Amino acid sequence: MNRLDWSQLDERAQARALTRPVQAVAAQTRDSVARLIAEVREIGDVALREITARFDGVALARFEVEAEEFAAAEASIAPELREAMVEAIGRIEAFHRAGMAQGYAVETAPGVVCEKIVRPIGRVGLYVPAGSAPLPSTALMLGVPARLAGCREVVLCTPPRKDGTADPAVLVAARLTGVSRVFKLGGAQAIAAMAYGTESVPACDKLFGPGNGFVTEAKQQVAQSGAAAIDMPAGPSEVLVIADAGANAAFVAADLLSQAEHGPDSQVLLLSDSDALIDAVQVEIERQLARLPRAQIARQALAQSRLVKVAALEDAFAISNRYAPEHLILALREPRAWLEQVEAAGSVFLGDYTPEALGDYCSGTNHVLPTSGAARAYSGVSVASFQNMLSVQAASRAGIAAIGGCALTLARAEGLDAHALAVALRMEAA
Amino acid sequence: MNRLDWSQLDERAQARALTRPVQAVAAQTRDSVARLIAEVREIGDVALREITARFDGVALARFEVEAEEFAAAEASIAPELREAMVEAIGRIEAFHRAGMAQGYAVETAPGVVCEKIVRPIGRVGLYVPAGSAPLPSTALMLGVPARLAGCREVVLCTPPRKDGTADPAVLVAARLTGVSRVFKLGGAQAIAAMAYGTESVPACDKLFGPGNGFVTEAKQQVAQSGAAAIDMPAGPSEVLVIADAGANAAFVAADLLSQAEHGPDSQVLLLSDSDALIDAVQVEIERQLARLPRAQIARQALAQSRLVKVAALEDAFAISNRYAPEHLILALREPRAWLEQVEAAGSVFLGDYTPEALGDYCSGTNHVLPTSGAARAYSGVSVASFQNMLSVQAASRAGIAAIGGCALTLARAEGLDAHALAVALRMEAA
Repeated sequence: MNRLDWSQLDERAQARALTRPVQAVAAQTRDSVARLIAEVREIGDVALREITARFDGVALARFEVEAEEFAAAEASIAPELREAMVEAIGRIEAFHRAGMAQGYAVETAPGVVCEKIVRPIGRVGLYVPAGSAPLPSTALMLGVPARLAGCREVVLCTPPRKDGTADPAVLVAARLTGVSRVFKLGGAQAIAAMAYGTESVPACDKLFGPGNGFVTEAKQQVAQSGAAAIDMPAGPSEVLVIADAGANAAFVAADLLSQAEHGPDSQVLLLSDSDALIDAVQVEIERQLARLPRAQIARQALAQSRLVKVAALEDAFAISNRYAPEHLILALREPRAWLEQVEAAGSVFLGDYTPEALGDYCSGTNHVLPTSGAARAYSGVSVASFQNMLSVQAASRAGIAAIGGCALTLARAEGLDAHALAVALRMEAA
Repeated sequence: MNRLDWSQLDERAQARALTRPVQAVAAQTRDSVARLIAEVREIGDVALREITARFDGVALARFEVEAEEFAAAEASIAPELREAMVEAIGRIEAFHRAGMAQGYAVETAPGVVCEKIVRPIGRVGLYVPAGSAPLPSTALMLGVPARLAGCREVVLCTPPRKDGTADPAVLVAARLTGVSRVFKLGGAQAIAAMAYGTESVPACDKLFGPGNGFVTEAKQQVAQSGAAAIDMPAGPSEVLVIADAGANAAFVAADLLSQAEHGPDSQVLLLSDSDALIDAVQVEIERQLARLPRAQIARQALAQSRLVKVAALEDAFAISNRYAPEHLILALREPRAWLEQVEAAGSVFLGDYTPEALGDYCSGTNHVLPTSGAARAYSGVSVASFQNMLSVQAASRAGIAAIGGCALTLARAEGLDAHALAVALRMEAA
């Protein structure tokens, strides 16, 4: 791990310390994703079948998960896993429901009523990765708000395993959140199928969820082409911890390691005004690493990470706001008092007893969050991500009489005479 | 104008009737925009100066509008134009303020509090076109919600005129809405400057506003690269009118023409269950065209447009939802009763006395809206477009004891042992 003293760095070194590993998409990746998308778009299921055989090593006659496979999945998973999912859904639903947007109306002038109305996005597509580690929790995080939003159809794609089945925990999670249809499709081909539709997969209006580099690139390409909207740009997961001298070094080390175990490209930063705490965290990291099965992945991520000594905690917040982390842990004695200093972050964890893992699974907040600094201008997934807000306005005769003059003046100033005429005709008749 | 009878069309012809003119970006446009962006990114103001001289035909020593130019703009515009802007701002502000998101908190389990907190996006960049027709109204539509959101800095770019000044009405609109800094920059170079920053223009987190093909392509490219977020994909403006036999043909014709006068690529659709109404609208369009200075532009747009007879009004709503228009006018006897049938549209106008021009200028709703079918998965600009929602969670010792087990089970099921360890350590200490 790189240990730095912020006040000793010049501006250039400070900027370098906050630079994320470049996630440049190789031209080769871009081209092969574009080819996959074009194949799926043009020849549909035939292409999906061929690509799935090639990449997932399994020949599927049918992509959609049928009743028997759902039943087998229910029968195969541990009862306590199912119970944990039901419990998590309860809290995710309670928190997300409380934040749902309501329509509203304002009489902006006598006889002029303006409104917002909320409508679910018609058909949404969820992607749930299932490579080395299948992520049923992601199915919960996407399925719950989609159901609350009231989307007409919720499609979920997850990669098939070598035996042609899908991960059973993902299937149970999909069932528990009311997903309409599940398809055993992974990678860029799944994204292409949900964006353009094939004989078996319906075309979706918006696509959600994390994935590897191919999935992410495919989401970008279908969004760019206008085929489907996407939830947000995606990058490797990251955490920034701000800890004071009173923080528990073992807890802080465990939080840094939970991020590091996600993958070799995960980003981990610790900012503290206490050298002693940083020392203790370094010792704890080594101790805990010895116990972790995924230690090798974590070590690679830690090689890129930084332990930064700051002169004062205020500096740590300035640095954090500039970095805009996906996850921000405040291992501070008065975390709530510091919260108002947080300007940009995906999800914030207050105090010693709120590990990031709670938010990943079951505190109630969403774990699909902006990475790579996108938290400066994007928010995590919520029910609103699955809805549109439509504007509505209604003017009576009195209404057009009241505000028509204002519209006429502005239309004429902009040289838009047909706009002015459309208003003037009503004013004459009103 | 193309006149069609929906029930006489086969599926393929129906699909064709709803196809928008393809807005394929020429490879040449893409490349030249990419080159402009690279130049601005690499050599900053020097590039901006050279590009502005080349495209806008003016050599600018300084891009930022200074106090004297603002004062001259205030002195030069008609008092009634300034008053109309002030009046419009009042209603835009009233409507947008009423829809502002509030933070909230939920105790999802004993000792576990989850919250959403609202934070303004730090620095935003607004683009206001000023080619053949400068659009001060767009400055109002972007400046008002940016101010309500509380963004720390609001930057606005608008193209310079040949004499080196900016459009005075745009400057006054910027001043009235509290924009922090205005730069005389247009086209892709303005977008590049706001995304990457130069010596004189600060780098912004998110960019807003309409523009020509170069501006739109530049916004897509900077969003794709992760340099800045953007409000939404943009395409030509469009209106869909659903009118019944009782509608006023002159009003409907005027609404279709207000859309058509925007540009030759504007899209105009009329759906009606009354042949007589469609006949009358055609006559009215010809009559009104004779009076319009921008008749030539409107005629080009009308050549692409469609008048569609439907068997029943229900069919018109099904068609509209499939098309997902930017503007939807319900010229119906009971418009409010039909509103619940609307699933996807940017902004809806109810009844005979609500011309689209009201929403463009001063009803209170926003006129920066999703086009090209994007209304299926995007909403128009609102205060929320200028804000982030951050999740926050805090667990006490009792909280981790209450929900830690659930997190442990899910973490172990996903094979994420460091996640489990971070939870277990707290549970042991709690």
